[in-house]
Amino acid sequence: MKERLAEVHHLRVADAVLGWDEQTYMPPEGAAARARVKATLNRLAHERFTDPEIGRLLDQLAARLEAAKADPDSDEAALVRVVRREYHKAVRVSPRLAAALSEAASQGYRAWLAARDANEFAPFRDALARILDLQRELAQALGYGEHPYDALLDQYEPDLTTAEVERLFARLRQGLVPLVRAISERLDAVDDGILRQSFDEAAQWRLTEEALGAIGFDFRRGRQDRTVHPFCTAFSPQDVRVTTRVAPDQFAFAFFASLHEGGHALYEQGLPAHLAETPLGQAVSLGVHESQSRLWENLVGRSLAFWRFFLPVAQRAFPRQLGDTSPEAMYRAVNRVEPSFIRVEADEVTYNLHIMLRFDLEKELIEGSLPVDGLPARWAEKMEEYLGITPPDHVRGVLQDVHWSQGLFGYFPTYTVGNLLAVQFYRAAVAARPHIPDAIERGDFSPLLQWLRTHIHVHGSRYTPDELTRRATGGPLAAEPFLNYIREKYGALYGVPAGSG
Amino acid sequence: MKERLAEVHHLRVADAVLGWDEQTYMPPEGAAARARVKATLNRLAHERFTDPEIGRLLDQLAARLEAAKADPDSDEAALVRVVRREYHKAVRVSPRLAAALSEAASQGYRAWLAARDANEFAPFRDALARILDLQRELAQALGYGEHPYDALLDQYEPDLTTAEVERLFARLRQGLVPLVRAISERLDAVDDGILRQSFDEAAQWRLTEEALGAIGFDFRRGRQDRTVHPFCTAFSPQDVRVTTRVAPDQFAFAFFASLHEGGHALYEQGLPAHLAETPLGQAVSLGVHESQSRLWENLVGRSLAFWRFFLPVAQRAFPRQLGDTSPEAMYRAVNRVEPSFIRVEADEVTYNLHIMLRFDLEKELIEGSLPVDGLPARWAEKMEEYLGITPPDHVRGVLQDVHWSQGLFGYFPTYTVGNLLAVQFYRAAVAARPHIPDAIERGDFSPLLQWLRTHIHVHGSRYTPDELTRRATGGPLAAEPFLNYIREKYGALYGVPAGSG
Repeated sequence: MKERLAEVHHLRVADAVLGWDEQTYMPPEGAAARARVKATLNRLAHERFTDPEIGRLLDQLAARLEAAKADPDSDEAALVRVVRREYHKAVRVSPRLAAALSEAASQGYRAWLAARDANEFAPFRDALARILDLQRELAQALGYGEHPYDALLDQYEPDLTTAEVERLFARLRQGLVPLVRAISERLDAVDDGILRQSFDEAAQWRLTEEALGAIGFDFRRGRQDRTVHPFCTAFSPQDVRVTTRVAPDQFAFAFFASLHEGGHALYEQGLPAHLAETPLGQAVSLGVHESQSRLWENLVGRSLAFWRFFLPVAQRAFPRQLGDTSPEAMYRAVNRVEPSFIRVEADEVTYNLHIMLRFDLEKELIEGSLPVDGLPARWAEKMEEYLGITPPDHVRGVLQDVHWSQGLFGYFPTYTVGNLLAVQFYRAAVAARPHIPDAIERGDFSPLLQWLRTHIHVHGSRYTPDELTRRATGGPLAAEPFLNYIREKYGALYGVPAGSG
Repeated sequence: MKERLAEVHHLRVADAVLGWDEQTYMPPEGAAARARVKATLNRLAHERFTDPEIGRLLDQLAARLEAAKADPDSDEAALVRVVRREYHKAVRVSPRLAAALSEAASQGYRAWLAARDANEFAPFRDALARILDLQRELAQALGYGEHPYDALLDQYEPDLTTAEVERLFARLRQGLVPLVRAISERLDAVDDGILRQSFDEAAQWRLTEEALGAIGFDFRRGRQDRTVHPFCTAFSPQDVRVTTRVAPDQFAFAFFASLHEGGHALYEQGLPAHLAETPLGQAVSLGVHESQSRLWENLVGRSLAFWRFFLPVAQRAFPRQLGDTSPEAMYRAVNRVEPSFIRVEADEVTYNLHIMLRFDLEKELIEGSLPVDGLPARWAEKMEEYLGITPPDHVRGVLQDVHWSQGLFGYFPTYTVGNLLAVQFYRAAVAARPHIPDAIERGDFSPLLQWLRTHIHVHGSRYTPDELTRRATGGPLAAEPFLNYIREKYGALYGVPAGSG
């Protein structure tokens, strides 16, 4: 069984290496052939994983473990449980449906690019309608409890339900919308001018690598390269790649993208190496993955303690630009809030409102209560409701994200799950090891990293996201810790009275 | 059939991308997991290609083509012929033997590294003996006419026989040994001091890219990266990667390695794109591949015409180092001859003697007439006989090449085949288009490249190496054109009387 799983894993890793190469170094004309190679690897991995022989082996192993009353936390029991879950999901997607989804994603991506070029929704319309039909078919094939969207969510965040997301998002909205409104009235309270100077690209690059090294990224087991869109990909815990993009007139972009991807990478480097070629050795969910990136990017990288340590390092790289600033001024600058159109540029306070908007629209689209043609207008309406602004065009509105063109419905909520969990995990770590903030101020990130290694990383997929969260924090995924963190931090930064939000 | 071949091809391409990444960018700790992924891709490619269903399909197709009296040069007929040949070779290697060869290569490589570290032959001895046993078994499995070495040769150079190599090498030896002796008496006639100055690495890099661009390497369909050992690998004609290494105190290394790999790359970029995912679209043999690299490296890059064009370009990059030199002085410097211990550093005149030595020893080892323990002494004896020098240690002797540790027996002769064919192809091109040297002097490489495209590249594996050579040059692989070229060029450079060699 382990041999069969390793084979599937190897095909997926090969696909991931080809994907990394495609984004980093592949010459432009290599794309067409590359797509065909990746399609073959994906098809073979799916074929091999859904081989009925794997199902029979899993049933046998499960029966044997039950008969032996095996410890459910043992590697064997956990592996059989996790693989059975994945297997039964995988076999529900017929080769015909998988091929149709893949074909629709290719067409969708091309249509989306054409729509963006034209800054019009129309060129994307039919492709999106086709994708939605297939997503509904996928939800039926996967099966669900209450809502077809449950099935889509479950692909990325096991066991998370639409009802639970609605409950969390309602609570967040209630807190965030008034806070954003209050901050919008005093935007000038925080100035980020120091971040918007000219910063040498090579010096920025070296600084991101210093920051990655400082937080514990192991360059013997990973590397950083340049791409248009930053990402993290892992081929094993011994080979984890992050990427970033350097903007010559903007300090924050490369730096926080590096910390963000570095957080993903620390998770990957900390996964259990002895299970690396099994599903048990993989990250448990996108939400938990995002919690690690957000924790290092925001809870650490946007804290005052961090800048008390790191500002002198940054000043050595940029004496002219940052020589006269203070840790407090840097802390304020990197935490500037402003409602804006583009999700990936959004600050900690407004970010989740972008996600809520997408969740609302996805649910309505999947249900069919929102027709595809009504999408751009509904987007504008929701932007006004949540952020008090109206996008001037489609590129800064409904066409900004690649996700829908790829058939990634149910994916967006995991970003907010990550934001909430980041605060919950960080609070639990500090509760267990109160010296963490002091250590950060001294440039020692190991107490925090060790806590994450022990309570999150080392478990791989052994527990469900819910079990993992309860074990690590004593409670379930929740909105309150995040809201408290945001209210406290941004209330102080913007002088907003405690009643707002 | 094409779908099945494409699948096998995609697995091989994935393996090649992973190999490229391993040499260029993979972090050090990633090696162990990478080896397992590559082993799976190789095993799957072999399993899929040797599927008996492919054999049945091939027999059906061959029968159908025969019945239809199909043109043997048609894509279909050539494809069936080439694939059948490959298929019947592949099925003769049992999965057990393939695994043993692969395992012995891993062990052999480790033993070779240990032997090099110790500068002793002993740590490599047993691993090499094991590899030789398996190579003999491989030769039996593959089958052969007269000599077991025929089977090993045929893997890399289809249809080339031991007897034919012996005939060619005897002719070459007869010409080269006296010539080397005569040159050895007047080594000071050519000075390469200008190449041994300090050359900025970044400027060298840019110059190699300028040279690659000039000869026709298409950077939209390829790229150059840094590795310890230069190589060329291709994922499709649209994605061809070369690598080189820059030595800061040596102009020639990076420059000629780039031209050499660039020659391989022009072949790959010129292979028939519509057959890219079939064996017909691949390079026909290692010897023909090497002919392309040597043609661009030596016949072009070490010609006076080339330096009349390129010296001003190099002078712009290195005004201090090269500003005072002339095309003639540069031509002399890049053609300095000196018997030396290391094959990969050898000049055009002595290089083939290094190959002959290896061929002699390989044949004796495979026959069993030379016991493994006698190898170092026999190496020294042959060096003295062919080059008049004795290696001071094993690292500069029998342990210098990685090939034997990898089980690559029968591979070395293809280097000399390449050297001979390079001259034959270049002469044929100039005979057909006499303005080629003038065009080179003006920096126009397209008449030469076009001839190679039409007479070599576009044919892929449609013809056997022998057929291809006869079609392109009007005759078979031969030693005379090479010897004439060497005698003429180096006789003039060293003032050696025509009678020598």
